[in-house]
Amino acid sequence: MARLRLTLAYDGTDFAGWQIQAAGGGRTVQGCLEEALATLCGQPVRVHGAGRTDSGVHALAQVAHADVPEHRAGLPWGKALTALLPKDVAVTEARLVAPDFHSRFDATGKEYRYTLWTRPGHVLPWRRPYVWDVGRYGTLDVAAMEACAGLFVGEHDFAAFQNAGTDVHSTVRRVWDVSRLAGTGPDETVWRFHGEGFLKQMVRNLMGALVAVGRGKATAEDVATLLAAGDRRRAPGTAPAQGLCLHAVEYGAPGVAGLPGLGDKPAEPAGSTT
Amino acid sequence: MARLRLTLAYDGTDFAGWQIQAAGGGRTVQGCLEEALATLCGQPVRVHGAGRTDSGVHALAQVAHADVPEHRAGLPWGKALTALLPKDVAVTEARLVAPDFHSRFDATGKEYRYTLWTRPGHVLPWRRPYVWDVGRYGTLDVAAMEACAGLFVGEHDFAAFQNAGTDVHSTVRRVWDVSRLAGTGPDETVWRFHGEGFLKQMVRNLMGALVAVGRGKATAEDVATLLAAGDRRRAPGTAPAQGLCLHAVEYGAPGVAGLPGLGDKPAEPAGSTT
Repeated sequence: MARLRLTLAYDGTDFAGWQIQAAGGGRTVQGCLEEALATLCGQPVRVHGAGRTDSGVHALAQVAHADVPEHRAGLPWGKALTALLPKDVAVTEARLVAPDFHSRFDATGKEYRYTLWTRPGHVLPWRRPYVWDVGRYGTLDVAAMEACAGLFVGEHDFAAFQNAGTDVHSTVRRVWDVSRLAGTGPDETVWRFHGEGFLKQMVRNLMGALVAVGRGKATAEDVATLLAAGDRRRAPGTAPAQGLCLHAVEYGAPGVAGLPGLGDKPAEPAGSTT
Repeated sequence: MARLRLTLAYDGTDFAGWQIQAAGGGRTVQGCLEEALATLCGQPVRVHGAGRTDSGVHALAQVAHADVPEHRAGLPWGKALTALLPKDVAVTEARLVAPDFHSRFDATGKEYRYTLWTRPGHVLPWRRPYVWDVGRYGTLDVAAMEACAGLFVGEHDFAAFQNAGTDVHSTVRRVWDVSRLAGTGPDETVWRFHGEGFLKQMVRNLMGALVAVGRGKATAEDVATLLAAGDRRRAPGTAPAQGLCLHAVEYGAPGVAGLPGLGDKPAEPAGSTT
């Protein structure tokens, strides 16, 4: 067998997440990919993804690997898979790698981006599936959000920001950066979450807490207490899935930021508006 | 009756265009709007749009007007309509205007934007409904395209760039600007078309000619000959609808460019790539 490494972009809107479901459980990215690979290989192929994105979460650069038969190894995988895959998934890179490469275990960092729609009044229709409309809450206190974001940087027990349904040995994670980038337009703000790894729905829970602080529903002190106490029941709500995008998965030396990507512009200094 | 002026943003993907169709003719923006207005007014309401966008064409700022009963004039129209309209249409501005305002006859200029996807290999899934994938054609000759674009500026008979199905008195139109803007990401190029008015599918036909020149399938001289001859049958193909967006409708002194909008960044100097 030859090991294939794939980088994938997908629109999560119509997917029940990355991970393949029990029969009748809905359309998944992993499922579509395994189906396309089976067609090309003439046999079942298991795919392993770096991150199990939730239903509705998008990806600019999810990474996955799979073993394919040697006699098919030379296929132009990127083109062949994209041709077979539905329109909401694209293979942006495909290459053969060493047989011990593992998309999940070898990952040394991940970057997520979360997009807030900050304009009051209306959301542009084509941005709806990719943003959380916080414009309806009025002007957010960005300085307070940025102060709160600083609390998340470093090695912490993020038990208060983990949703149920996971079985992890430890809820301690190392986060390198939580910061505000400029948006893709005047109406949007993008938040960057960069760390060694994240617990289930952790990024959405951190974003939910930041918005609660921006709205004045909680203070940075409340969030610090929560982080220390580790009690999810007292935490602000989870931010909706559709604003989130898995921006990059990193391999190699940990903590090295990925290359600049879409919308990766420096933010203006924090003012009173997002 | 009171005259209401509306500015509308819509995602054209799932619409059979702006204009209401005969029964069974498909879902239209005008149709959805008239339905919502009838609900709010308790009587049928006719809507007049500034531009009849084709099936699949988007709008950032279409302008329309309608007459509503005096006793309903004070409604918060923007919010009320957006609440009733489907998710792919939003009212971005609503206000009462003088009873002689006419969205189409009073318009003194229109700006369209056309987005090309110029990266070879793959289109990001969420950009598919908003771009024309010309990355598959390889690198376009941008300098040749810009030279060709210059031919369209000024007052010309655009008969060669009009599609069938219209009944206009004259095919002469005044175009103020056809130019390349920076895209919304590293993989896209946006072309701006600004003029007094455009014939049916004229912008898509101009874009089709520009891409043909960029691909080396035609020269700027061919296009000049075509423009002079006025023969549509010899013209390059029409660019697909989904890359096009009605960016602004202008009123007042003609030729004054609209305010900077989404993605309105200055283009870098023309190089060998788009």
